Amino acid sequence: MTTGRPVGAVLANPGSDRVRAVRRLTGRSARLREGRFVAEGPQAVTEAVDATVAAVTAGRAPVVLELYATYGAAARYPEVLEAARSVGVQARTATDQVLAAMSDTVTPQGLLAVCTLVDVPLAAVLDGRPELVAVLGYVRDPGNAGTVLRAADAAGAGGVVLSDASVDVHNPKCVRASAGSIFHLPVATGVPLVPSLRELREGGLRVYAADVSGDLDLDDLLDAAEDGEPGGLADPVAWVFGNEAWGLPHEVLVACDGVVRVPVHGRAESLNLATAATVCLYASARASRRARRRRQV
Amino acid sequence: MTTGRPVGAVLANPGSDRVRAVRRLTGRSARLREGRFVAEGPQAVTEAVDATVAAVTAGRAPVVLELYATYGAAARYPEVLEAARSVGVQARTATDQVLAAMSDTVTPQGLLAVCTLVDVPLAAVLDGRPELVAVLGYVRDPGNAGTVLRAADAAGAGGVVLSDASVDVHNPKCVRASAGSIFHLPVATGVPLVPSLRELREGGLRVYAADVSGDLDLDDLLDAAEDGEPGGLADPVAWVFGNEAWGLPHEVLVACDGVVRVPVHGRAESLNLATAATVCLYASARASRRARRRRQV
Repeated sequence: MTTGRPVGAVLANPGSDRVRAVRRLTGRSARLREGRFVAEGPQAVTEAVDATVAAVTAGRAPVVLELYATYGAAARYPEVLEAARSVGVQARTATDQVLAAMSDTVTPQGLLAVCTLVDVPLAAVLDGRPELVAVLGYVRDPGNAGTVLRAADAAGAGGVVLSDASVDVHNPKCVRASAGSIFHLPVATGVPLVPSLRELREGGLRVYAADVSGDLDLDDLLDAAEDGEPGGLADPVAWVFGNEAWGLPHEVLVACDGVVRVPVHGRAESLNLATAATVCLYASARASRRARRRRQV
Repeated sequence: MTTGRPVGAVLANPGSDRVRAVRRLTGRSARLREGRFVAEGPQAVTEAVDATVAAVTAGRAPVVLELYATYGAAARYPEVLEAARSVGVQARTATDQVLAAMSDTVTPQGLLAVCTLVDVPLAAVLDGRPELVAVLGYVRDPGNAGTVLRAADAAGAGGVVLSDASVDVHNPKCVRASAGSIFHLPVATGVPLVPSLRELREGGLRVYAADVSGDLDLDDLLDAAEDGEPGGLADPVAWVFGNEAWGLPHEVLVACDGVVRVPVHGRAESLNLATAATVCLYASARASRRARRRRQV
């Protein structure tokens, strides 16, 4: 074991004030009031600690404010605890019961971090000059939002935007589904959707809505990019994805540069939100890669 | 209203034997014993009725054995009830409480069908000479299985295979996530995975495992197909997807023709099962389309 070893008495009382304060962060109002949220499990906590190391090294405030580990987790992930300690965040040891009482997960896997909220203004997303952005309009399911966040990260997106009336990105289910990606790329939240589209366009992004009503076919756009036609998917794109049940309202669709449908080759009516979003984001990544390849030839 | 109007007394007792018999079908053992499962909601029930019409028209047994509708749903979906009646399946009217007691959904939306199990032997999947097949190996989450089934349908797959030790495809959550696709394409279940790969290969399919450990990059395979190289993604492919947590075991990976990784352009470690599967299935659909397009030029 290293100096990352947890310090202090073992937290063993699942009913303590501290435990209840962490548990309250499963609720949105407590998260907003406290400016904190919870990341659980080795993957999310590792990413939170990495983000903390990067932030502190850059002279910014740490992301992780409190870190809790069971004995077992402290033995399994000493490097995570040591990395946290190296930037001044000392893990506390807690029993399995305390970890379980702090979170809404049945098996929080022994690691839990209380973090500062990570969302940023839309302008901060655009400051990074992103070439790919995922915009979630009125998405209500936290698992869907987290899955799209993870897919956007995997596709190389430079940012994610959640409109007002979308789920809270700090919701525990969203954090879990994002598999750590919430700490990887800037996320703007609570953004009024239609005005944000103009900002994205002024930031150099073509704005495409993904919708089953689309008059543009994603495969045709890929064909055009493949044929070297200017514009389209090889350019910087912001993809707008709508509500799970009713999609995007008319005023949003008309405010976009185009409405794109994912082709359906079989008898399904459509894909679900997260899988459709992933196909769109990966189409952009694919077109960009092909454009780079063509420029190199 | 048409002759599709429900008949008989309104079912109003949520504790009746009939209601409890339907409700028991939420459990796997009851489904296997009875050879029946439940489809709920307008989308799934419409697809079940369509499948019944097709089956009866072709001289086969009906898929829907019992059909229940609230007054409201009977008024909203008269064409569904009429289509069922046209092939001898008469809907029964039930109260909202009875529908809720029959299903495990909070809001079953007024329509529920008791159906015969839809799974078929692997040989029956291959009889259709499919050019795209999704194989789920040891997938445990019913929502994931249903989502991949829906994505396979959307990508134009000719069949889906669930290995032994996978979730039951007739699980209510799987049926719901499939959004009706469970009635669209043949599904083989309980198949021993490694032997099935040889059968798929003998059926003319190249067998690719999707795994983060893959030495083949999906984008490179698409490039090769784009450059007109023989073999690869434009050929008939069976994609094998593994368990949510631990992927595919070594003996499965070595039994495949290749192990393919979905490229990750950002900092995410990977995609989740359903989104990774969708990207792979859509890559196959894309390569096939481009190959057809090239042949037409």
